[in-house]
Amino acid sequence: MPEARTTGLPEGWEERGKPPTLFRRFEFARYGETRAFLDALAALAEETGLHPQNINFGTTYVNITLEPAEGGALGETEYGFAMRISALAQAGGK
Amino acid sequence: MPEARTTGLPEGWEERGKPPTLFRRFEFARYGETRAFLDALAALAEETGLHPQNINFGTTYVNITLEPAEGGALGETEYGFAMRISALAQAGGK
Repeated sequence: MPEARTTGLPEGWEERGKPPTLFRRFEFARYGETRAFLDALAALAEETGLHPQNINFGTTYVNITLEPAEGGALGETEYGFAMRISALAQAGGK
Repeated sequence: MPEARTTGLPEGWEERGKPPTLFRRFEFARYGETRAFLDALAALAEETGLHPQNINFGTTYVNITLEPAEGGALGETEYGFAMRISALAQAGGK
């Protein structure tokens, strides 16, 4: 029986789809917090040269999907990027 | 037979869903243009106090969904907002 894979994934992220992508939903109390997170995320993309495959947001949520580099599998690059994104959400909530 | 309603809609936008929302996809040649558009869109939201229901983007596209104010129907407010968003995309392409 297929199960959601969770072992080894960055906290709060899940694998989705085939080929697998990394997905996480972030929720915020106010648009200002959502905005701060999105701005920090844009700066992180600028710094790392890594871009989520898709970012889907409204006033108080941001859904992020990360895909592996062309033809590859999810690995340390994507996991590390995911963890840095999660850290931005914590910082943005201050 | 149901038809897509197009008459009177801002150019490039379509009605979707029930209750209807306004939807448009914008495509860009490079991430830098996508980024400039998203930044301008954030500034427009700040200025007008209007926020798209959903923004869905990747490196070279931005999909935008506008919904009417609570309980209302799509009208001049949403159409005006849509046209200002379209104008940002043209400006950002420079």
